[in-house]
Amino acid sequence: MVSPAAPIGVFDSGIGGLTVARELMRQLPEESIIYFGDTARVPYGPKSPDTVRRYSREIAAYLRERGVKALVIACNTATAHALATLQAEESIPVIGVVEPGARAAVTASRGGRIGVIGTLGTIRSSAYERAILALRPDAHVVARPCPLFVPLVEEGWLDHEATRLVASEYLTAFAADRVDTLVLGCTHYPLLKPLIAEVLGPGVALIDSAEQTAAEARRVLAARNLLAPAGSGAVRRWVASDAPDQFLRMAERFLGAPIEGVETHTLG
Amino acid sequence: MVSPAAPIGVFDSGIGGLTVARELMRQLPEESIIYFGDTARVPYGPKSPDTVRRYSREIAAYLRERGVKALVIACNTATAHALATLQAEESIPVIGVVEPGARAAVTASRGGRIGVIGTLGTIRSSAYERAILALRPDAHVVARPCPLFVPLVEEGWLDHEATRLVASEYLTAFAADRVDTLVLGCTHYPLLKPLIAEVLGPGVALIDSAEQTAAEARRVLAARNLLAPAGSGAVRRWVASDAPDQFLRMAERFLGAPIEGVETHTLG
Repeated sequence: MVSPAAPIGVFDSGIGGLTVARELMRQLPEESIIYFGDTARVPYGPKSPDTVRRYSREIAAYLRERGVKALVIACNTATAHALATLQAEESIPVIGVVEPGARAAVTASRGGRIGVIGTLGTIRSSAYERAILALRPDAHVVARPCPLFVPLVEEGWLDHEATRLVASEYLTAFAADRVDTLVLGCTHYPLLKPLIAEVLGPGVALIDSAEQTAAEARRVLAARNLLAPAGSGAVRRWVASDAPDQFLRMAERFLGAPIEGVETHTLG
Repeated sequence: MVSPAAPIGVFDSGIGGLTVARELMRQLPEESIIYFGDTARVPYGPKSPDTVRRYSREIAAYLRERGVKALVIACNTATAHALATLQAEESIPVIGVVEPGARAAVTASRGGRIGVIGTLGTIRSSAYERAILALRPDAHVVARPCPLFVPLVEEGWLDHEATRLVASEYLTAFAADRVDTLVLGCTHYPLLKPLIAEVLGPGVALIDSAEQTAAEARRVLAARNLLAPAGSGAVRRWVASDAPDQFLRMAERFLGAPIEGVETHTLG
């Protein structure tokens, strides 16, 4: 029997998922969180679906052993390749980032012309396209990978001229497609939101799935009476599969607040 | 007993080491090669020394089982963290990329002011600095990481304005340091050589360790009577730990020639 006081397990290939953890902490401040970043095997974006599925299963097993009451896959690539598998195999609720983002995009889009950007793995999986078309079959969806955005964010060049040039190169095609909504389909991208908005102009709504995913987690936990009782005393634990110093150094940029320590746990 | 007709085992975290394989094929056309690219766990650059050592050991064991007569670590990060370990543990010769690059830099440098660029892992290891100072104790060595170069090369933006801006940002400090020689301490960087030369100007000699490493391999094999006899009929095998299609797609850029097929072998 799962207790409402148990933590939520959140995982990502690395640190990007901290943008989702940040929203969970904002919307569900009473909830305890165990975050696992697979920094030893990051990035998942270019890896094959089978490999990403295998890694996701290992992390889910690790978090299950730590008694989590729900799993949030705070990684677009892992959601695209492993959500259905984990939902079938785990007895606790498993929430991904794709569905909530797709729903928000469909709600925001006036004309139904929706762009999606993400890693190579996420884009190749067509996960957003499928999720958007399931909600709005007449939508026109164009999806393109932006492989340089993650390293630019990790380098901290959020407002650098080189980043602006890269964004122009990647995003110009979306203007030609006349999209009115763009899904930031990678947990790193919210940090580039101001620059992307500047490049695309005010006519395009930007959808950041972190916010939507946290709202979905709240809804799912509430429906099962699994929300942590007020005054539970939220505890947050941060675990990385490698190099905790780098995790620690970058965490504040993604989380909006510093963290005190990172545990290391080797997988695989 | 190792046979001179046995292949040379070459490995890298991914595809970058193909620039070294290319030089081996040019300088030692009779040699058979088994190349292993650990594309499932790329990049090694940001990973901890222990993790890189563990991965390198697994790959060395895989190549040893395939009967290679020598190992070339065609990866700066793996050389920095695992060369000494593999040299101690393996009975066949093990050659890295750092020592040959350091030697070439010391030979090329007039004033002894030598710059080194590489991944975060390579630069943090101080492997080049140590190797250069061992050869020329009065050298002045400055080393800086250039984390965006690898993704820019993999995106194929070898002559893009964004790449030029990134290079200017990374390399300007070396001009202030008045280096006369710069070591391209990452197997991806030779593809940016023309652009780096343009940014730094003609006063700085650029050292590409691939060429030096192949020459070192020739010397080591000759000293042990292990050079393949003429007319052996060189066979080259390409193995990746994940996503062979991406390996295949990028191989030509690094190798200068297309390859016919990639085998997949999962590790770890």
